[in-house]
Amino acid sequence: MFSLDRDSPTPLADQIEQRLHALIHSAQLPPGARLNSIRQLAQRLGVSPNTVVVAYDRLVAASLIDSRGTAGFFVAEGPADAMPDLLTQAARVEAGEEQEAVWLAQQANDQKAGVLLASSGALPATWLEDAIPAAAVQRGLARATAGMASRCPPQGLPMLRERIAMLLRSQGVAVDAGRILTTYGGTQAIDLICRAFLRPGDTVAVETPGYFLLFDRLRQAGVTIVPVPRRPDGIDLDALDAACTRHRPRLLFIQSVLHNPTGWGSTAANLHRVLMLAQRHDFLIAEDDVQGHFHPGAPTRLAQLSGLERVIYYSSFCKAMSPALRLGYMAAEPALLKALMREKIISVLTTAALNEYVLLEVLAAGRWRKHLDRLQQRLAAARAAATQQLRQAGVLLEHPGEGGLFLWGTLPAGVDVDHVVKEAFRAGILLVRGATFAADGARDPHIRFNAAFSQQPRLADFLRDQLSATTSAQRAVERARSRIN
Amino acid sequence: MFSLDRDSPTPLADQIEQRLHALIHSAQLPPGARLNSIRQLAQRLGVSPNTVVVAYDRLVAASLIDSRGTAGFFVAEGPADAMPDLLTQAARVEAGEEQEAVWLAQQANDQKAGVLLASSGALPATWLEDAIPAAAVQRGLARATAGMASRCPPQGLPMLRERIAMLLRSQGVAVDAGRILTTYGGTQAIDLICRAFLRPGDTVAVETPGYFLLFDRLRQAGVTIVPVPRRPDGIDLDALDAACTRHRPRLLFIQSVLHNPTGWGSTAANLHRVLMLAQRHDFLIAEDDVQGHFHPGAPTRLAQLSGLERVIYYSSFCKAMSPALRLGYMAAEPALLKALMREKIISVLTTAALNEYVLLEVLAAGRWRKHLDRLQQRLAAARAAATQQLRQAGVLLEHPGEGGLFLWGTLPAGVDVDHVVKEAFRAGILLVRGATFAADGARDPHIRFNAAFSQQPRLADFLRDQLSATTSAQRAVERARSRIN
Repeated sequence: MFSLDRDSPTPLADQIEQRLHALIHSAQLPPGARLNSIRQLAQRLGVSPNTVVVAYDRLVAASLIDSRGTAGFFVAEGPADAMPDLLTQAARVEAGEEQEAVWLAQQANDQKAGVLLASSGALPATWLEDAIPAAAVQRGLARATAGMASRCPPQGLPMLRERIAMLLRSQGVAVDAGRILTTYGGTQAIDLICRAFLRPGDTVAVETPGYFLLFDRLRQAGVTIVPVPRRPDGIDLDALDAACTRHRPRLLFIQSVLHNPTGWGSTAANLHRVLMLAQRHDFLIAEDDVQGHFHPGAPTRLAQLSGLERVIYYSSFCKAMSPALRLGYMAAEPALLKALMREKIISVLTTAALNEYVLLEVLAAGRWRKHLDRLQQRLAAARAAATQQLRQAGVLLEHPGEGGLFLWGTLPAGVDVDHVVKEAFRAGILLVRGATFAADGARDPHIRFNAAFSQQPRLADFLRDQLSATTSAQRAVERARSRIN
Repeated sequence: MFSLDRDSPTPLADQIEQRLHALIHSAQLPPGARLNSIRQLAQRLGVSPNTVVVAYDRLVAASLIDSRGTAGFFVAEGPADAMPDLLTQAARVEAGEEQEAVWLAQQANDQKAGVLLASSGALPATWLEDAIPAAAVQRGLARATAGMASRCPPQGLPMLRERIAMLLRSQGVAVDAGRILTTYGGTQAIDLICRAFLRPGDTVAVETPGYFLLFDRLRQAGVTIVPVPRRPDGIDLDALDAACTRHRPRLLFIQSVLHNPTGWGSTAANLHRVLMLAQRHDFLIAEDDVQGHFHPGAPTRLAQLSGLERVIYYSSFCKAMSPALRLGYMAAEPALLKALMREKIISVLTTAALNEYVLLEVLAAGRWRKHLDRLQQRLAAARAAATQQLRQAGVLLEHPGEGGLFLWGTLPAGVDVDHVVKEAFRAGILLVRGATFAADGARDPHIRFNAAFSQQPRLADFLRDQLSATTSAQRAVERARSRIN
C-alpha cells in the first residue's frame, strides 16, 4: 500500500496520515472503501498500533474516514477532501451566519492534512514532541494511578501549586502556593474572571487588537467593551486614561508580554503607569500571560510590579508544553482567588488529578527550562526567516515584536484583505484577518502570521501572486483613470 | 518511626497517611518538625517514592504538613488536626457566611484522615483502585504521548465518542457518535446547559430534593426555580403538570435513575408521562444520569423513550471509574449539541486529549463492564449492611431505593437534625442534612447516607447515642410537662 520513511524528521503518525490522505484524495481509496484494521496496518508498516490510532483519529476528525465501531474504518462517503467543508464554513462566517470567533477557535489550530495554518495560535505539533519526556510521564502516571481514585482539591494539587509558585518567583512575581489556582488553560481563566467579577452592564477595558475569544466571552457576559489601542511599547496610556475618565471600567484585560496578535511587549515604565491609572480610577487588572513562556528574556509583568495588588494574573502550559494536558494557572490575592475558586467549583468542580500529577512530574524533572530555551531559539530562527519571506512577498512588518509566535503584518494600501483571506482559503491556507482581532470588529489591513508556519515558501508564493496581481490591477485602473482625466 | 502492614487491605499510601496523621495528632511529630524527604521515607519503608508522594500530598491538602519547596516537608504550625478548621467552617456555614453548597461540594468528598464522610457523594477511593487497569493506562498514555502535541477536537475524540455511543446504545439509547459531546464531568454538563439555554428571568423546574450544586448554579443563572416533589416511583406528575400550567418552565432538570439524594428510580410509565407533559407544555428536559453506572439492572431512561427528542442527556465516568480523569459526556440532537459545544469552546476551549485517550483505552480494554458488576455487588452488600445498622440506630428508611450510593434516612420525629449534624462534626463524622437538598432550602428531617461509608459501626454508635439521648431528653420534658399540667 505504502511505506514509511524512517529517516524523515516527520513523525510516523504524520506520515501515515499524509499517505492515506493522498490515497483518499486521488481516489485510489474510493469513498466507502474499508481501511486496514489498526492491528493489520501496524503489522504491515512495522509500527506500534498506537501510531496508527493517532493517524486514524486525525483522519476521522478531518471527516476523511468514518469509524463504524467494530465494523472498522471506511473512507467517508462525502467529499474526499476537507477543504470544501472549510470553504463552506468560511463562506458562512463571511455571511455572518456563524459565530466567527468560536469557529476560528475551533478551526484555526486543528492541524488538518493539506491545510497551512499560517495564522494559527499554536505551534506545529512536532515542535512540542520533546516537551513532556517519556520518563516524566511514566512517573507522573504512576503517581496519578496511585492517586487515581482521589479527587484533585479544587484549588489544585498543593505540590503542583508549590512548583508553579517557584516558577512565578523565578519571574520576579512574589507569590506562595496559597495564591495559585489551577485551571483548564487560559480560556478557563478568562471564563472564571468573567463569572466572578463581571455582571451585565459593567464596563470592561480591553486592548485592541486583542484575543477574539476574549471579546466573544465579554459580549456573552453582557458587559460594555471599551477598546484601548495597543502600541508597540504597551497599551496607549493617554487613551486608557481618557477611557477610564469617561467610562469608569471595572476591569482591564491586558496582555503585557508577547501580545496576541501583534507580538509586541510593554516597557516597565508603561506598566508602572498602567498600575497608577488602576489606582486612580479604581479598576482591577486581568493580566494575560499565556504567551509568556515563549519570551527569551526577562520581561517585566504587572503582577511583578504590583505584588498582585489589583492584578489577577493567568498563564498556561497549553502553548509551550502540551495542548493535550490543558492546564493553566492563575495567581491572585486570597480574597479574589477564593471568588475564582468558587466559580471553578460551580462550573467544573475541579481539574483532573491525572493531568496535575503529570504536569508536576514534568516541572519536577527539570527539563522544562531546557525545552523552553530550545523552543525560543527555534522560534527566533523562524521569526527571522518568516519576516524575510513575508517582506519579500510585499507584506509590511513595521514593528516585528520581541519574540513568540506572532508577526503582525500589514498588506499594502489598496489591497482588499478580505479578498486575500478568501483566496487563501481556496488555496488551502488559513489566514485570520485583522478585523477578527479588533475589539469593535472594524476593518483592519493586518493579518496575524504564525512565525512557525509562515516560513513555508507556499505562503510567500501565494502572497506574492496576490499582492502583485492587486498591484498590477491597481496600476491598470490608475492608467485608465489618467487616460480618462 | 513506624512500619507498614503489607497484609492489610488498606493501601500503603493510606497507611503512611494514617500513621503520620497519628504521629502529628499525638504531637510525637510536633508543629514545625521536619519530615523525612520523600526518598528517605520511601527507602526506610521499602515502598516506591510515588506512594510517599501520594501520602504527603494528602497531608498537605489537609493542612497537616507544609511543603516548603526544596527545603522539604514540615509539620504545619497551625492546629495539629484538620477538624478545628472543619468546625470553624461548619460554624460559618451555619451562620450563613459561607455558600453552603459550594463549601459542601469541596469538603464532603475530600477524604481527610480521621473524618468519616458518611454523607459523601463519592465512593471510597479504595473501591475504584481496579477501575483503570494499569495496562490500559499504559496503552492510553502511549497514544496520548504520540498525540500529546495535538489538541483534542472540541466535541471529543471521534473514536471515544464512538465508544460512548456504543455504551449508550447498549442501554437502549439510540445515538451515534455525532450526537455525543465530552465534558469535564457532570458538573460541566450542567454548566453548559445553563449557559446555552437559560437566560436570567427564565423559569426552570427541578426535582426536590435534588443536587445542591445544581440549585446553586441555577440561582447563579438568575432563573426562577420551581421545585417539584420527588416520589419513590419518579417525579410527582400532578405537581409537575400544575407547576407547568402555572409557571411555564423552559427546562426541567430530572434524575430519572438512582436519584440523588434519595436513591429512588422512576417507572417507565412515569417517564412516559413526563415526556407527554414536556410536549404539552413545550419544555426541554435535562436528564442527569451521573449515578446510572451504579444501577445493577436495565432501568428505563427518558433519552431511551424519547430518542433524544426534547431530551439533553448527560452522564459521567467520575463516580464509577475515576474522579482523577474528570470526564463525562452529553447526548443531544445536533442543533442542541452545537449550542452546547459553542459554550464548551468559549469556557474551556476543549477537553484534555490525555484524559480522552486514557478513557478510550479503558473502555476498549473491555474490563469496564466487569468492574461495574463488582462495584454493583459490593454496593448492594454495603446497602444491606448500612440499612440494617441505621435502622437499629433508630433511623427510618421507608423507601430504600434501587441501588447506588445513597440511602435517604429520616430521623425520628422531635429530633433536631441540625443539632445532630453539628454534634457529628465534633465527632469527626460529616453528615449532610436534608435542607441542603431542598430546592427551596426548607427544613427537612432527612439525612443523606452514603451506603459505602455508612456501614462503619462508628456512625451507628454515634447515631444511637444521639437518638437515644434525644429520646430520653424528650421523655424527661414530657414527664416534666405532665407534672406541671
